[in-house]
Amino acid sequence: MNLLETRDSPADLRRLPRARLAPLARELRGFLLDSVARSGDHLSSNLGSVELTIALHYVFDTPRDRIVWDVDHQCYAHKVLTGRRDRMHTLRQLGGLSGFPRRDESAYDSFGTAHSSTSISAALGMAEAACLRCADRHAVAVCGDGAMSAGLAFEALNNAGHRHDLRLLVVLNDNGMSISPSVGGLDRWCARRRGPAPSAAASASVFEQLGLRYSGPIDGHDLDALAAALQDLRGRRGPQLLHVLTRKGRGYAPAEAAPTLYHGVGRFDPARGLPAPAASASLPASMLARSRPTYTEVFGDWLCDMGACDARLVGITSAMCEGSGMVRFQQMFPARYVDAGIAEQHAVTFAAGLAAEGLKPVVAIYSTFLQRAYDQLIHDVALQNLDVTFAIDRAGLVGPDGATHAGSFDIAFLRCVPNMVLMAASNEAECRRMLSTAYRHRGPAAVRYPRGSGPGVAVSPDLDTIPIGRGELQLSGADTAILAFGTPLAASLEAGAELGATVANMRFIKPLDVDLVVRLACTHARLVTVEEGAVMGGASAAVAEALAAAGIARPLLTLGLPDRFIEHGDTAALLAAAGLDAAGIAAAIRRRFALDTPLLAAGGA
Amino acid sequence: MNLLETRDSPADLRRLPRARLAPLARELRGFLLDSVARSGDHLSSNLGSVELTIALHYVFDTPRDRIVWDVDHQCYAHKVLTGRRDRMHTLRQLGGLSGFPRRDESAYDSFGTAHSSTSISAALGMAEAACLRCADRHAVAVCGDGAMSAGLAFEALNNAGHRHDLRLLVVLNDNGMSISPSVGGLDRWCARRRGPAPSAAASASVFEQLGLRYSGPIDGHDLDALAAALQDLRGRRGPQLLHVLTRKGRGYAPAEAAPTLYHGVGRFDPARGLPAPAASASLPASMLARSRPTYTEVFGDWLCDMGACDARLVGITSAMCEGSGMVRFQQMFPARYVDAGIAEQHAVTFAAGLAAEGLKPVVAIYSTFLQRAYDQLIHDVALQNLDVTFAIDRAGLVGPDGATHAGSFDIAFLRCVPNMVLMAASNEAECRRMLSTAYRHRGPAAVRYPRGSGPGVAVSPDLDTIPIGRGELQLSGADTAILAFGTPLAASLEAGAELGATVANMRFIKPLDVDLVVRLACTHARLVTVEEGAVMGGASAAVAEALAAAGIARPLLTLGLPDRFIEHGDTAALLAAAGLDAAGIAAAIRRRFALDTPLLAAGGA
Repeated sequence: MNLLETRDSPADLRRLPRARLAPLARELRGFLLDSVARSGDHLSSNLGSVELTIALHYVFDTPRDRIVWDVDHQCYAHKVLTGRRDRMHTLRQLGGLSGFPRRDESAYDSFGTAHSSTSISAALGMAEAACLRCADRHAVAVCGDGAMSAGLAFEALNNAGHRHDLRLLVVLNDNGMSISPSVGGLDRWCARRRGPAPSAAASASVFEQLGLRYSGPIDGHDLDALAAALQDLRGRRGPQLLHVLTRKGRGYAPAEAAPTLYHGVGRFDPARGLPAPAASASLPASMLARSRPTYTEVFGDWLCDMGACDARLVGITSAMCEGSGMVRFQQMFPARYVDAGIAEQHAVTFAAGLAAEGLKPVVAIYSTFLQRAYDQLIHDVALQNLDVTFAIDRAGLVGPDGATHAGSFDIAFLRCVPNMVLMAASNEAECRRMLSTAYRHRGPAAVRYPRGSGPGVAVSPDLDTIPIGRGELQLSGADTAILAFGTPLAASLEAGAELGATVANMRFIKPLDVDLVVRLACTHARLVTVEEGAVMGGASAAVAEALAAAGIARPLLTLGLPDRFIEHGDTAALLAAAGLDAAGIAAAIRRRFALDTPLLAAGGA
Repeated sequence: MNLLETRDSPADLRRLPRARLAPLARELRGFLLDSVARSGDHLSSNLGSVELTIALHYVFDTPRDRIVWDVDHQCYAHKVLTGRRDRMHTLRQLGGLSGFPRRDESAYDSFGTAHSSTSISAALGMAEAACLRCADRHAVAVCGDGAMSAGLAFEALNNAGHRHDLRLLVVLNDNGMSISPSVGGLDRWCARRRGPAPSAAASASVFEQLGLRYSGPIDGHDLDALAAALQDLRGRRGPQLLHVLTRKGRGYAPAEAAPTLYHGVGRFDPARGLPAPAASASLPASMLARSRPTYTEVFGDWLCDMGACDARLVGITSAMCEGSGMVRFQQMFPARYVDAGIAEQHAVTFAAGLAAEGLKPVVAIYSTFLQRAYDQLIHDVALQNLDVTFAIDRAGLVGPDGATHAGSFDIAFLRCVPNMVLMAASNEAECRRMLSTAYRHRGPAAVRYPRGSGPGVAVSPDLDTIPIGRGELQLSGADTAILAFGTPLAASLEAGAELGATVANMRFIKPLDVDLVVRLACTHARLVTVEEGAVMGGASAAVAEALAAAGIARPLLTLGLPDRFIEHGDTAALLAAAGLDAAGIAAAIRRRFALDTPLLAAGGA
């Protein structure tokens, strides 16, 4: 570790003779493997970008030259080389380093990236800024091939293509994969370029058509080739694209063999590798013995079961087959499985097209990525009242992925859209019934559910529905009524039991069970809403609006996510910090309504 | 008009011998010119697509084959030919035909389109549905070259490129323009193809790189060429792209000469044409004599003035230079003017890139189109607390453009985003001061203002700001306090005067003036909120939340847009129908709080 330990900044790196870069890469790769294996994290793509990272910092004058790392989980080598080696063990933990580049973490992180495909737009903005300020610096976007399928990347390339005055370099870090293998026409073009003898059809580049100067492909693990190519490009003006071929998991044989398995990993022993995944794909859902399935798995099972009983169902994902729990569905119903690539906008409008023809698309999408298809959801689906089901995974806090991936806003941004039905699942069994309910509803409907496992409620294999717009009382108490939306139900029940309060499982954010709200308001002195989402405009606002419309003025305490971005860390700890665990809910109710407070609690802190 | 009057459906059209199509096109063009000149509407692009429309219906078996008309204002000939000739005079009026294709208007309108670039995704969904159902039908997307710059279109092409089993045809209706001339690398490629001898660099098509079979370009006004090409393509499987060259305004010389001027027109005499626009571009804002400037003009003037005093300002539009009032800015500061093309996502992330370098971008965007950049606003701007100003035009109802273009949701979807400052302008002078306030604020800030003119308040030429988060009392009354957000202030003042109510101009949706809300709540028996936006999650919810947080239970009436999509029609009439004029506000307050009602009003209806 001699070389690595004495490189505390890219300036140190640049003092090395070129021949020393290869040994440095070996050390760096070993450090990353060791570090990720110890903490559990994203491995494959970070191993693949070691040489590229070294070469970029070697050739470019960072941080004066700007490098924007597109999400792709390729920035760990960059973090190590830019003075954060000693804190790598804190990655994605509360108070520790972020798993993504962040402007407030390092001057070398010129732009925060965590949603895919933003790097070219941001780098183009930076290049434009350099031009306007007559600063002779470069802006470099490092973008994976998977990220290239997003419209945002295309928009940026198309806009860059005619700016021949700028110093912009796009490095296409092509490993042939998103998390899953990349899809789409552009990927096929890349694949032809990747081949040993590029075919004639692939000789003219799509990037050149858009106005960028294309060079490559070159071996992204060959430091000499990388340094030479980058050196040449650094001398040029106008938008440049360098096509670099890398291998996910490079240098660690198990990850090279199974890059998707090693995309994000728990802690493991590098000498042994991960256990092979269970061959569960061919088993029916009911045969799978799982003590506590994740919500994602509950969705995946439901999708297979509903797909088996309705041939109109089409399952759609945006490059999140594994993350959304659709592997088994894909295997069972390949003709009715669509991976749109990293292209959320298209996925939703494509679904609308299917629905216009009487099919029943189910779009599986993370809450935070649905933000990218917001206009399509409004304009193409809801406005035409088309029958599309949205399975919104990762709703609420997401732990180590942090603020960029938290599903904080879906309640607020979906509730205002006419024709939408929106449910929040409080446990696994309810999640399945809500999915069936959304699916049977003739119109746009969404179910939100969180990352991870639920409270462990047994899931029945049927496809029963629940009545639209109806919540249910779960605990009868007095004075205080707690209205829980989705996941905070369990904590609310605990707090309610402690306080002698009534607790309702509201289930529907839209349409809200107004009758239940009014009934509770009329029989209780005060109301409390609890949700795992932004309070502003959230389910609490729905309740406030219902009270206002009914002409009822009643004290209302609204608990949920505060009006700030919540950092990465352990989900349970973050929820507790936001006051959304049972103790927090009870304390907030006591505090607000000046209820009797046990001496111990009052004396604390 | 013999031919046109006897064609009541595409089936009638298909019975014509091919030689009769050209005379039909002449009749149809004359009818459109006459009809648009009489009512005022979108002209240039509709004139340009007459032959293409005839040829498509002639060759394809509509409505069994599906045609999806991308927005591009190219569907009027289609409407005339599909049984709606007699209702064309009702276009864009209350209860009349929509200016866009609509599924509930005709079986020939297979998919509603009004935001750009949705057609390929929708048609791909339809082609997929046909494949799954073993239906031997075609899906055709007719997409303008301007619409091709949007990422959504690219995502769809990229996804279509490997589906060689589908019957999908994309017709690229290339007239070289959005509303303004098209921009970007793709457009330059198209331009090379448009030239008399396509250059070598343009010989391989970007579409072929993505996996579509490219043919063309052909003359989009040559019916024989069109019919032959479409006939050939109808026999093929796999994704096809036909490049068709058309001319905006075709067949009407004034519109051919000035297609942007004739993009959307008021009523005019076809024999005289429109008056030439005033050559105002070189005059300073203060020299322009305008009795009632539109909000768009107020923004345009402000942008020039602020741009003149701060060299860090960069003005950004997404293909809406004219619509956003940026023509003069573009001429005065060409180096600091960026037209991103129809590419809202890129426009916003590009702005974030500029802001990361210390520049001060101003993104001018319509409320409804900001929906398309929602994730970029959250993830790239707000999360990094970057200093981007959003000038949100067309906030609220937009009259004849209808539900697809209404700015109904921006309050709800922006309010939940941390770090955002959001203002609503109630008159022209305030709009300018709010723009200065947003600009001077170091962080993301937005000003929403409506389509059309304000109440006529004189705009001072300075660049003064207002205190962030502070509303102002405008009328002191008793019992009832009306809290007006933005444009409904004038009507609220009228209603307040009638009812003896207090009226506050809240100005800030976020941060809300909580002190003012609490003060009003403590001194009045009831509160009323009024906003020109969706009530759900809107400014009313902000007030309800503030009251709840302050522990104040007070009767609250929330007035704003209801939870349904509002159709096209005259804006004033639509606002009255939504109860947002003075009479409606007063009546709602009386009704809700059982105030004394004048006998006359009570006896009506």
